[in-house]
Amino acid sequence: MRLYGYAGKILRINLSKKSYAVEPLKDSLIKHFIGGRGFGIKILWDELPANIDPLSPENKIVVSVGPLTGTKVQSASRWVAQFKSPLTGIYCRSVGGGYFGAELKFAGYDAIIVEGKAEKPTYIWIHDDNVEFRDASKVWGLTTLFTRDIILDETDKRAKMIMIGPAGERLVKISAIVTDDWRTAGRGGGGAVMGSKGLKAIVVRGSKRPEIYDDQTLSDAVNEQIKAYREWPAVPPADFRRLGTNTGTYVWYFMGNFPTYNFQQREWDGIERFRPEILESYIIGHKGCYACAMQCGKIFKITNGPYGGIAWDFPELETEWSFGGIVGVNNIEAITYANMLCDLYGLDTISTGVAIAFAVELCEKSIIDKTETDGLELNWGKPEIVVELVRRIALRIGNLGNLLAEGVRRAAEIIGRGSERYAMHIKGLEMPAYDPRAMKGQGLGLVTGTIGASHAISWNKFEILGVPKKADPLAIEGKAELTKYVQDEMAVCETAVFCKLIVNHDVVNPVFYSRVLYSATGIEEFKDPKYLWKVGERIWNLERLFNVREGIDGKYDILPERFLKEPHPRNPAKGQIFELEPLLKDYYRVRGWDEQGIPTKEKLAELEIP
Amino acid sequence: MRLYGYAGKILRINLSKKSYAVEPLKDSLIKHFIGGRGFGIKILWDELPANIDPLSPENKIVVSVGPLTGTKVQSASRWVAQFKSPLTGIYCRSVGGGYFGAELKFAGYDAIIVEGKAEKPTYIWIHDDNVEFRDASKVWGLTTLFTRDIILDETDKRAKMIMIGPAGERLVKISAIVTDDWRTAGRGGGGAVMGSKGLKAIVVRGSKRPEIYDDQTLSDAVNEQIKAYREWPAVPPADFRRLGTNTGTYVWYFMGNFPTYNFQQREWDGIERFRPEILESYIIGHKGCYACAMQCGKIFKITNGPYGGIAWDFPELETEWSFGGIVGVNNIEAITYANMLCDLYGLDTISTGVAIAFAVELCEKSIIDKTETDGLELNWGKPEIVVELVRRIALRIGNLGNLLAEGVRRAAEIIGRGSERYAMHIKGLEMPAYDPRAMKGQGLGLVTGTIGASHAISWNKFEILGVPKKADPLAIEGKAELTKYVQDEMAVCETAVFCKLIVNHDVVNPVFYSRVLYSATGIEEFKDPKYLWKVGERIWNLERLFNVREGIDGKYDILPERFLKEPHPRNPAKGQIFELEPLLKDYYRVRGWDEQGIPTKEKLAELEIP
Repeated sequence: MRLYGYAGKILRINLSKKSYAVEPLKDSLIKHFIGGRGFGIKILWDELPANIDPLSPENKIVVSVGPLTGTKVQSASRWVAQFKSPLTGIYCRSVGGGYFGAELKFAGYDAIIVEGKAEKPTYIWIHDDNVEFRDASKVWGLTTLFTRDIILDETDKRAKMIMIGPAGERLVKISAIVTDDWRTAGRGGGGAVMGSKGLKAIVVRGSKRPEIYDDQTLSDAVNEQIKAYREWPAVPPADFRRLGTNTGTYVWYFMGNFPTYNFQQREWDGIERFRPEILESYIIGHKGCYACAMQCGKIFKITNGPYGGIAWDFPELETEWSFGGIVGVNNIEAITYANMLCDLYGLDTISTGVAIAFAVELCEKSIIDKTETDGLELNWGKPEIVVELVRRIALRIGNLGNLLAEGVRRAAEIIGRGSERYAMHIKGLEMPAYDPRAMKGQGLGLVTGTIGASHAISWNKFEILGVPKKADPLAIEGKAELTKYVQDEMAVCETAVFCKLIVNHDVVNPVFYSRVLYSATGIEEFKDPKYLWKVGERIWNLERLFNVREGIDGKYDILPERFLKEPHPRNPAKGQIFELEPLLKDYYRVRGWDEQGIPTKEKLAELEIP
Repeated sequence: MRLYGYAGKILRINLSKKSYAVEPLKDSLIKHFIGGRGFGIKILWDELPANIDPLSPENKIVVSVGPLTGTKVQSASRWVAQFKSPLTGIYCRSVGGGYFGAELKFAGYDAIIVEGKAEKPTYIWIHDDNVEFRDASKVWGLTTLFTRDIILDETDKRAKMIMIGPAGERLVKISAIVTDDWRTAGRGGGGAVMGSKGLKAIVVRGSKRPEIYDDQTLSDAVNEQIKAYREWPAVPPADFRRLGTNTGTYVWYFMGNFPTYNFQQREWDGIERFRPEILESYIIGHKGCYACAMQCGKIFKITNGPYGGIAWDFPELETEWSFGGIVGVNNIEAITYANMLCDLYGLDTISTGVAIAFAVELCEKSIIDKTETDGLELNWGKPEIVVELVRRIALRIGNLGNLLAEGVRRAAEIIGRGSERYAMHIKGLEMPAYDPRAMKGQGLGLVTGTIGASHAISWNKFEILGVPKKADPLAIEGKAELTKYVQDEMAVCETAVFCKLIVNHDVVNPVFYSRVLYSATGIEEFKDPKYLWKVGERIWNLERLFNVREGIDGKYDILPERFLKEPHPRNPAKGQIFELEPLLKDYYRVRGWDEQGIPTKEKLAELEIP
């Protein structure tokens, strides 16, 4: 069968043996899993034994792209890293942007599987059919900026890369995988997995281009897509081209999200600093990913105060929150600087901010004191503490830096003394900028997320944006259906690999996806949106099965007791708690899972999961 | 007359009028001043009225190159910035390296004269005959790294540039002019002069190449020069290719230099960290300037400790000292980091370190306390204090940052209370890593330096390296002659523009210079080394006259009383003070100056200075 859209090959790299193999992309893999996130979970499900140590050579990293990656389809060229997470012990998918995904496709690969462990620091240099294992000793220990400059000097200045910083090398559990242009796959500790394998970077340069089945039809669809982007409403929270995710930050708070003071959610006038017009005043440039007219990445210039002198990728909404509201900081300069440090050291900004807030609340509650913080005086609203702790976590400096580098769940286990009450995570993954008490469907999505508390994979657009149709955030009725809807939809859209932001806004959905997917690949089955919905559900269920195989079943569909016992203190969610039990029960029913939250045989048969 | 070697043109830029003019290089200017430093002092002497405010639009910056710049002659492509210094109030010449000098020549200019003051932040984009005044608002406030990347994006990625960082913008008196590859012209506050003019950068790209009068003879000489570099003794303190100026750091201390604790010169075992083999362990790469086989620039990698993650140009000997011995710090990681911050913010590392040491000694002597240091606890040997103060000085943060940003002389004036005793400067320029008590000729050179206490323009190679012939450092007899020798020699060699390091080692001297200069230019007079010596003396005398015109005569040939009253406490200079009076008297005699240190009419006539 002649393949369109796809490169048709998987590159398998064994670091222990310094060997690689090129494997053909199987027809059944394509049909059942389409690409990207689908490929990743299928490969991990088939190849990873249960209960391995995520930081052992037995773990694998799958970096995959999709049939639309590297085509003209807009916002479809992201890449997905998948692995067993050292932070959560379960499945993790973490998505990054920039140009790496397209370049991998151009080099002729739909996925890379990395196995084993290098004897000494290594980077992989892939230029089309050539694959080299290169000595990374020179850049080992360096931040991403210096790593990039040195490696691109050694390879090809036009190459694209993913890499780790010092945090990943030091096996910081909340470390990220970072591209040459800082479009980070942050969540779940992918940086530490690369670090544990002695893998500093994967560098790619390709000269091929994907063949398209029906270019005219594809072009027509893409033109419509670009037109839709142009007509995107120019009002918050949707003016992405001008503001990026800054558009939502301020609005979030007044929806009952953008949690303050480690989810204590006290009123906070610091939020006034996050008004879109204030954030906009920092913008001096725009950037984006391959084939995306949205260009939602913004460059912030910081001139005032002790962090003055930088021009760096802005902190996205989640980061404005994780170094902002959750630690009571409204200093945009410091937040931008801390965000830059995370890009440089290779840290997940969400988990890092939540870890810092955890430590501050432990001090507030007198569970730890200065003897355990290496002398740091932890308080809410201290930008210099946030910046300093980012560095200490990344470099594992001191007792506190080392502790928080493990993530809040493990840190709380080590500290004990009731500290777990303040560890804001689900299944080990730190919470994002949403409050389950204020949005019940969103909360249910967080609780049931296959990677833990993800801001990305269960984003409830019904509640948040009112698309494709409005839903009352505080109601619990019907939320199981909506949660399943957004979960399955995102799962399949991340096979393209489409950007979550575009799916969130319903500009891309399975209807549009099936149209461009069929034009690009000519695969008959993909014509039908219902087929795509089923692939999404298949992916979600297989991810769940992966976790169940690791012993993580419905017993772990829980969340910090704060959400169950402490009523949300401010409007519009004032007095609300999160009704876990009925929501979950309904969700299992809608999912066709049993009472332990395990997919039934019937469901698996229906989804053709053997 | 057909010109060889030279571009033949001076570019005069008026920022107030946003206008420029191209002026021919006059024959008399060439004959009398050759290039580089010679051009600069002559232009300033002719064009700057006395007593202007160095930060007013009336000041001018001359950036000049020489007849060998951009040719194949080795180590001859540096550039010289000259201006009335806001730090000292007198003449300043500050020399930088990299590729900017050659590129300026390739664009067709031997010098740029910058006049006036821009209405809003501006950078100059020179590509051959095109000169554009570009809006620098976007990069105003940014460190040099971001400034470089943004400006090269806006112009030409292959362009070369000089620029200022936030320190220069904030008129920090010890701010530097920095190239795109961090080969900084650090001394005298050139950054502030650019800042006062609203000039963020000068960016150059050229397509021309200098014509050579006798290419065969020049090639032969250059081949000999390269051979001499190859045969350079591979032992400290001269193994430049391997170690750069790291070669001297450790040795310095045992010569009685590398002054400790703000020149208190107490014994200090911290020096053991500066052994060449330790410093070498940080090197991961080499870099150099245009047409220089020496490649003495080293890249240091820092992985350990809180400053881990960087790969940056190493701190040269002077910087290893200014953030090392003088503040009692032996933490190479912190020193490298502080050095990087200076490159990024645009600060002179020597003056910055001396300013910090001044503040620490004031605390030691209880002249200031924490109420005046913005809460910082100042002590010797605290790397984190050095790093923090570099930032505060550059960004003028707090009382202390603002105070030290003025340089030690002015800071002492403001503080009063006898603090001037601890302000280690000569004529307002902070002292370098030499102790006048330990090397009398070197000390005399510092006292009489035309820009103040310069490490570069009076380097006594007789005393330090024993070339071209050995001299006892502690003797005072005959030192006036040796001082005049090295001063005149460096003055003329900086017309080429040769690198000081090569002249210091006597690999380049007027004999070699005359040979390549004649081959390159075909100008008959340049054949004779004696002619070059005379040009050097002419330059030195004109620089002196410039200062005398500003009211700075022999009364100001003084140095901190520490050197006159406190015997050097350690070997080999133990018990020594600096014998100012006899040395200076002899120097005036040898110079042909009167008792006030003013060049006599006879001397000026002899030097054909009108």
